[in-house]
Amino acid sequence: MKFASRLDNVETSAIRELFKLLGKPGIISFAGGFPDSAMFDVEGLREASQKALAEEPGGALQYGATEGYEPLRTQLAAFERSKGVTDIEPQNLIVTTGSQQALDLLGKTMISPGDKVIVEGPTFLATIQCFRLYGADLVSAPIDANGVQVDKLEQLIAEHRPKFVYLIPTFGNPSGALLSLERRKKILELAVKYQVLVVEDDPYGDLYFGEAPPPSMLALSKDVPGSREWIAHCGSMSKVLSPGLRVGWLIAQPELLAKSTMCKQFSDAHTSTFAQATAAQYLKSGRMPATLDNVRKKYAERADAMAQALTRELGDAIEFTAPKGGLFFWARLTGAGGKVKDASEFAKRAIEQGVAFVPGAPFYANNPDNSSFRLSFATADVGKIIEGSKRLGAAI
Amino acid sequence: MKFASRLDNVETSAIRELFKLLGKPGIISFAGGFPDSAMFDVEGLREASQKALAEEPGGALQYGATEGYEPLRTQLAAFERSKGVTDIEPQNLIVTTGSQQALDLLGKTMISPGDKVIVEGPTFLATIQCFRLYGADLVSAPIDANGVQVDKLEQLIAEHRPKFVYLIPTFGNPSGALLSLERRKKILELAVKYQVLVVEDDPYGDLYFGEAPPPSMLALSKDVPGSREWIAHCGSMSKVLSPGLRVGWLIAQPELLAKSTMCKQFSDAHTSTFAQATAAQYLKSGRMPATLDNVRKKYAERADAMAQALTRELGDAIEFTAPKGGLFFWARLTGAGGKVKDASEFAKRAIEQGVAFVPGAPFYANNPDNSSFRLSFATADVGKIIEGSKRLGAAI
Repeated sequence: MKFASRLDNVETSAIRELFKLLGKPGIISFAGGFPDSAMFDVEGLREASQKALAEEPGGALQYGATEGYEPLRTQLAAFERSKGVTDIEPQNLIVTTGSQQALDLLGKTMISPGDKVIVEGPTFLATIQCFRLYGADLVSAPIDANGVQVDKLEQLIAEHRPKFVYLIPTFGNPSGALLSLERRKKILELAVKYQVLVVEDDPYGDLYFGEAPPPSMLALSKDVPGSREWIAHCGSMSKVLSPGLRVGWLIAQPELLAKSTMCKQFSDAHTSTFAQATAAQYLKSGRMPATLDNVRKKYAERADAMAQALTRELGDAIEFTAPKGGLFFWARLTGAGGKVKDASEFAKRAIEQGVAFVPGAPFYANNPDNSSFRLSFATADVGKIIEGSKRLGAAI
Repeated sequence: MKFASRLDNVETSAIRELFKLLGKPGIISFAGGFPDSAMFDVEGLREASQKALAEEPGGALQYGATEGYEPLRTQLAAFERSKGVTDIEPQNLIVTTGSQQALDLLGKTMISPGDKVIVEGPTFLATIQCFRLYGADLVSAPIDANGVQVDKLEQLIAEHRPKFVYLIPTFGNPSGALLSLERRKKILELAVKYQVLVVEDDPYGDLYFGEAPPPSMLALSKDVPGSREWIAHCGSMSKVLSPGLRVGWLIAQPELLAKSTMCKQFSDAHTSTFAQATAAQYLKSGRMPATLDNVRKKYAERADAMAQALTRELGDAIEFTAPKGGLFFWARLTGAGGKVKDASEFAKRAIEQGVAFVPGAPFYANNPDNSSFRLSFATADVGKIIEGSKRLGAAI
């Protein structure tokens, strides 16, 4: 059987490598990108789903509008307003089947084969593959703990004139980095200057540990004249409420939103109305603030425990910046004292010691840093984080 | 903003035309492609969703495997076995976000820009647009009341060497046609002879009114040596259980299934596990046979009422074959007695009389028959079907 030529652009081996690491029983896993199931507000979601079926069974079970279930769009617009996006209305967003689908729709709508797209180096693995399936030629912009380096980004935009720039500005995956307020504003100015779309993927922004991060680039766009036209924002219920609902959303200017809606119509017609109605009832119930408080508090404890344990167990053999939110530590092997410097080798030794994580190289679209690796503190409790870090110490 | 070139292959005006017809209040609608919400087994789905959350909240709310939720794959394999697909196992299918996503994944996996794909003329509107977004050059094979005309199909396969052939063999949308047993077997032989993939889209096969239709081409493939390799089958819970769950499935040979799974990973990661766990519990509950009996009986009454009323009110001004299942009548204006022969004109007059349906032309990828039109009997009760048909009589 002869498959489509677009499949030639994607290699799945990197991903299979990651998943292979997760199988062993008894292992402590820092490998996943999942939130902790134990934190899901099951009772709240049970009530919400019952209410959805009781109050509007037709709406929850019938075909729905491709743009999304209207009561959910209303709730999501209010949710965004509560986070500083003061000028948003329900018609400015569409509901997507997780924010992964928002990425897929942006790829389908925007990328012609051979088009350049700038991403962060490193960036979300599934984004790399998703855009490459549409024929994108990816260019990596370097980052530091304050997010993408704006001078380098401008050079790359000027040189490559990309179809768009894809960023995870707030607690990036895998980087954990937080783009500074100053850089956010500067990038919005670049969007206007070069008339280039900036995609802000924001699944982690609600998961901050101390003070709130700077407002989203979407929220800030009101301060940079002309920039709202050039920003697309992807939101998600997956990290704070439940990934299993597959409820995300895309905010963009009207023409891009209309084209994305058309593409969605032929991708899956619409997102599960049952899941949408459940999410709408949940948001309406008023339980979200307490749920957010709970997950922020628990993840903060785990992140703190991991920062201390890594420093204690691994010392100068690794370097990292403790994240201020999200689910991930991003670290580099320094090779200090002749210790292992290749993250794939380190991952193999770690598995032997009973702890898993993912090497960083696959997260780069170009020029991988083979000494980098990602640790998730989301699904292991504090005890396991301490024990897992000890095993990392033994492995190094 | 410059969009991807693939969008140039799709015109949305035809679809918008269809939707515009549906807005007027007080109108009797034969226009939709929806099942009747009043027939949904809300209580059964309520119980199923509660059970899903009570028995395995983690599984129902967490990220899941791209291939699908294992208990649902098990139930779906059993469902297919009950319909004569004797040799199927859970690993031979993946769960999709409605069968629309199965079509999208087949397009993404198989179609390179410029590839030929054969469809029925007429065929499902969203299929035409879905495949064109991947650059397909569609070729229409003519149909009659017994489905696609096999001699013509073979000529077209030999001439165009298509990437695949897409058929809705059982109670087609919009045609209502039922592909005969003899033709099914012959097409499986053609698949082997020309080594061409045949996609069997089967959302309506469970909705028969009298005796069961011939087995699916998937079920029949065991009788035609070598054909199983060349058949992909799309199933759906949307027409009998609930479209709002967005639960469909794709059955195909291992390599095609693996490539489709990879494409799905970057499309939406997985189908809502909450919806999947609910569907799995529903199938496990044993309520499905009674649900099927109920919808078959009610749709049969409505189809019968429509056949009688159309004959009574429109006489020789139209011709049609009453369907033996599904949701649709497909009819042609004959122009007898100088009456209207253009279905778009007829649709406009019908709206003025307070009844809506969709003209047939947009359902053709090539060479539209402008005298054809589609009537759905699914969502109007018998009284409305009689009144709506009277209004059609007045409009003609």
